[in-house]
Amino acid sequence: GVLGSGDFARSLAVRLVCSGFKVVVGSRNPKRKANLFPAAAEVTFQAEAVKKADVIFVAIFREHYSTLCDLADVLVGKILVDVSNNTEINHHKESNAEYLASLFPACTVVKAFNVVSAWTLQSGARDGNKQVLICSNNQEAKRTVAEIAQVMGFTPVDMGCMSSACEIENIPLRLLPAWKIPIFLALGLFLCFFTYNLIRQVIHPYIREQKNKLYKIPIEVVNTTLPCVSYVMLSLVYLPGVLAACSQLYYGTKYRRFPDWLDQWLQHRKQIGLLSFFCAALHAVYSLCLPMRRSHRYLLIETAVKQAVEKKMTIWVEEEVWRMEIYISVGIIALGLLSLLAITSLPSIANSLNWREFSFIQ
Amino acid sequence: GVLGSGDFARSLAVRLVCSGFKVVVGSRNPKRKANLFPAAAEVTFQAEAVKKADVIFVAIFREHYSTLCDLADVLVGKILVDVSNNTEINHHKESNAEYLASLFPACTVVKAFNVVSAWTLQSGARDGNKQVLICSNNQEAKRTVAEIAQVMGFTPVDMGCMSSACEIENIPLRLLPAWKIPIFLALGLFLCFFTYNLIRQVIHPYIREQKNKLYKIPIEVVNTTLPCVSYVMLSLVYLPGVLAACSQLYYGTKYRRFPDWLDQWLQHRKQIGLLSFFCAALHAVYSLCLPMRRSHRYLLIETAVKQAVEKKMTIWVEEEVWRMEIYISVGIIALGLLSLLAITSLPSIANSLNWREFSFIQ
Amino acid sequence: GVLGSGDFARSLAVRLVCSGFKVVVGSRNPKRKANLFPAAAEVTFQAEAVKKADVIFVAIFREHYSTLCDLADVLVGKILVDVSNNTEINHHKESNAEYLASLFPACTVVKAFNVVSAWTLQSGARDGNKQVLICSNNQEAKRTVAEIAQVMGFTPVDMGCMSSACEIENIPLRLLPAWKIPIFLALGLFLCFFTYNLIRQVIHPYIREQKNKLYKIPIEVVNTTLPCVSYVMLSLVYLPGVLAACSQLYYGTKYRRFPDWLDQWLQHRKQIGLLSFFCAALHAVYSLCLPMRRSHRYLLIETAVKQAVEKKMTIWVEEEVWRMEIYISVGIIALGLLSLLAITSLPSIANSLNWREFSFIQ
Repeated sequence: GVLGSGDFARSLAVRLVCSGFKVVVGSRNPKRKANLFPAAAEVTFQAEAVKKADVIFVAIFREHYSTLCDLADVLVGKILVDVSNNTEINHHKESNAEYLASLFPACTVVKAFNVVSAWTLQSGARDGNKQVLICSNNQEAKRTVAEIAQVMGFTPVDMGCMSSACEIENIPLRLLPAWKIPIFLALGLFLCFFTYNLIRQVIHPYIREQKNKLYKIPIEVVNTTLPCVSYVMLSLVYLPGVLAACSQLYYGTKYRRFPDWLDQWLQHRKQIGLLSFFCAALHAVYSLCLPMRRSHRYLLIETAVKQAVEKKMTIWVEEEVWRMEIYISVGIIALGLLSLLAITSLPSIANSLNWREFSFIQ
Repeated sequence: GVLGSGDFARSLAVRLVCSGFKVVVGSRNPKRKANLFPAAAEVTFQAEAVKKADVIFVAIFREHYSTLCDLADVLVGKILVDVSNNTEINHHKESNAEYLASLFPACTVVKAFNVVSAWTLQSGARDGNKQVLICSNNQEAKRTVAEIAQVMGFTPVDMGCMSSACEIENIPLRLLPAWKIPIFLALGLFLCFFTYNLIRQVIHPYIREQKNKLYKIPIEVVNTTLPCVSYVMLSLVYLPGVLAACSQLYYGTKYRRFPDWLDQWLQHRKQIGLLSFFCAALHAVYSLCLPMRRSHRYLLIETAVKQAVEKKMTIWVEEEVWRMEIYISVGIIALGLLSLLAITSLPSIANSLNWREFSFIQ
Repeated sequence: GVLGSGDFARSLAVRLVCSGFKVVVGSRNPKRKANLFPAAAEVTFQAEAVKKADVIFVAIFREHYSTLCDLADVLVGKILVDVSNNTEINHHKESNAEYLASLFPACTVVKAFNVVSAWTLQSGARDGNKQVLICSNNQEAKRTVAEIAQVMGFTPVDMGCMSSACEIENIPLRLLPAWKIPIFLALGLFLCFFTYNLIRQVIHPYIREQKNKLYKIPIEVVNTTLPCVSYVMLSLVYLPGVLAACSQLYYGTKYRRFPDWLDQWLQHRKQIGLLSFFCAALHAVYSLCLPMRRSHRYLLIETAVKQAVEKKMTIWVEEEVWRMEIYISVGIIALGLLSLLAITSLPSIANSLNWREFSFIQ
């Protein structure tokens, strides 16, 4: 059974029918709404729909839950599936599912399908996340809904008892919250270092020697900026651990809570580290591209021609040769090690490591 | 208990014995078959084996299920594990497990272990997929088989009730079905563009100016072909979404099914996108290799010598310098963004993103 | 309830209080220990704590389990959670959890939380592995503990019945056991080939022609060493399969166990393959860096100057050009294929492939 006639209710009905379920839709105006639903789904009045169904998807807004109170008698003993989402994180004190359960104590309420979009429901789970998070205080009801999700082509994930409902309802509202601060940090650092390098490599030679080096902006200036950002970010990954250790030594206990800013910082280390790796990898690609550039070619030929005209045969500077060899060699090794770190932060790799192995690699 | 004496039955017996289970094998000719099984497994007549065992693995072909009907009496109340596979996708109307259940209504049938090869069973789950998909209408029986799989070193995955059996039986027959069309598409596009570039860069200069540029084939021609393929593929990822939107606007509804070809196309977008990324990455590597080539070195020296002899000092062409700097710079940024897209299509990353985050990144 | 007052017990109490549970700590000296625990946790005598709690975390060493025997009466019917670890793999005959269960047959024992470190417990599961492996012979108790783990922010993983306890207790002691031999192998091979290449490229020219080529050590010598290591490792991936097949042909059976060394070798193939890929990838990066080096630039200019002075215009050697084009082209294709292999060995990709697909790609 599906209660409601919105976008989600319709997609849900389409998907259930496609998966071979018998679907009955309850509406307050079944005649007008019938043409919105697939032909195989029966559209009728709410009370009748509820009577015919064992599992009822409540696809209406939290604000209208109380309108269902008339149906309290027929709902007794049924499984109610709360599929609702909020518009803001922690908008209400109690989760929608818990609110629904408090309205209908004679029903078994299951929270499920809210992490799935109407579009995914309709077209089937194709790519991206196929998980349906399910929680309920009733094991039997949870299992029934999990099996429905399975048949519909999703992967049911047991999230335990009803107290997880709030967490599950907040998930679809999340938009990479852990990445916001690190990304703004990286952009800020990039801007600072870019300005500094621009002044040093382009503006200064122009003012002092009237040399036009504007062509350096897209690659060379960016390429000297990236490793600076990467280094500062990498140091920001390891600094909070040192500060935390100092704070523990100072207070003489491991069990005192860290101040909020340090706690936040400790929590963002993984993201800062990955951005540091991203900058380092971009720096590697930029550096590798240097000899491909026309400007590199021109400068090389120019030097060769100048030498040839002056008949100067040897230009070998041992010190410069060595500096470059060591730069590149250390750079490659550092990139290799950072890659290992980045790979172990993939969820599926991290889950196959125990804590000893994880901290060994880190 | 194991019924059957084929390759799978023998490997199963080996593995069960190694995992510490007491194994009894039922055969119609126990004397002749006994030497095929490990010494620790008891080989006896089918009826006797069934009597002694609680969980019975039916390792015989679907065609011979009916020969077990003589054992119907002793099988009452036992758990039958159907491990069979088909030779063709959807070969029979009902799955093997459902057919077995219909033959022995007094038994509890569990579908399991069919996704595991005899070789994996025998040698233990070493690498690759360690999952054993299990489905049954009986929770208790499913749990028993799941625990056996766990002890054998596999990861049991609950696939819900018996109606999933058909899907589970089709899995081992699959050979990257979603990749076939995209790969042929990529190969076709590669061939077309390769021919065009071959004519343009090698054959045309040879006919017109008698210049031998054959050395360009392995790298330069391939390198100009790859980005063309990549671009066309990338546009094929976003085109069907546009067509789908147009179709929805035209028909004025979101709930009409798309025509089959569009539906197929929409389903292959992820694979087409990953192949596009693969071509782009190869193009990047090829481009980076250009300055390493002997031919590049020769051409460079030749130009330098020519300039020196003509005493022409400056060859700087501002426009060409800028074009190259911008090409490379935009190329690196595009590759970086495509890498992010490719990383989020890894199953374990995709599962940690909600739909809002996934579509934001896409 | 928590029994014990060590580091783990305190972290556990902190985390349980933070997750909203009512916590009672049992200690033999509650007055002295009270200040070690968070204020919200009640610290009292062991017997009293046990009476008040339904789920009791036994955070004391295996050696002291017998001191709990005085509490046997009050423990009847409670759920005991064994969180202990050993100091050595397979130190005791039976696992700690099984030992605890044998001491208190009237309790339900659940093995859980031992794979989590005190630090993770205290600070919440932030990065790395969030899984809590749980096993017990009692489904109901297992589910209760799983839900506690869920609320605490961990991902409970059902590991089946008590016989898995031993395996679960060994996990935190593991330190990349499958990688040790392959890594030493790779280091050994690297050292051998490095010495050979050092003699050939640096020491030999110095002795014979007194040429100082020391600058080649950090990049060129390493770069010729890496593909040698990679090739030998790759052949070591495929060799044991051939040996295994020969052994099967020789003995005429697939069911004979391989000798131990071959079995070990077969088990390490994945790690050897990944190290081979790592060396190949490093070789690619080193090669791409070659034209960036100062020495490359100097040698190029030197040649150009020499040619210009001698007025030698053409230096094109068709054979050398072709050799290099083919080298690079084959190298890129090989690296692309190895990358595919490496990607399919990621756990989350491997789990989405069936055996037919996996062996097709391999």
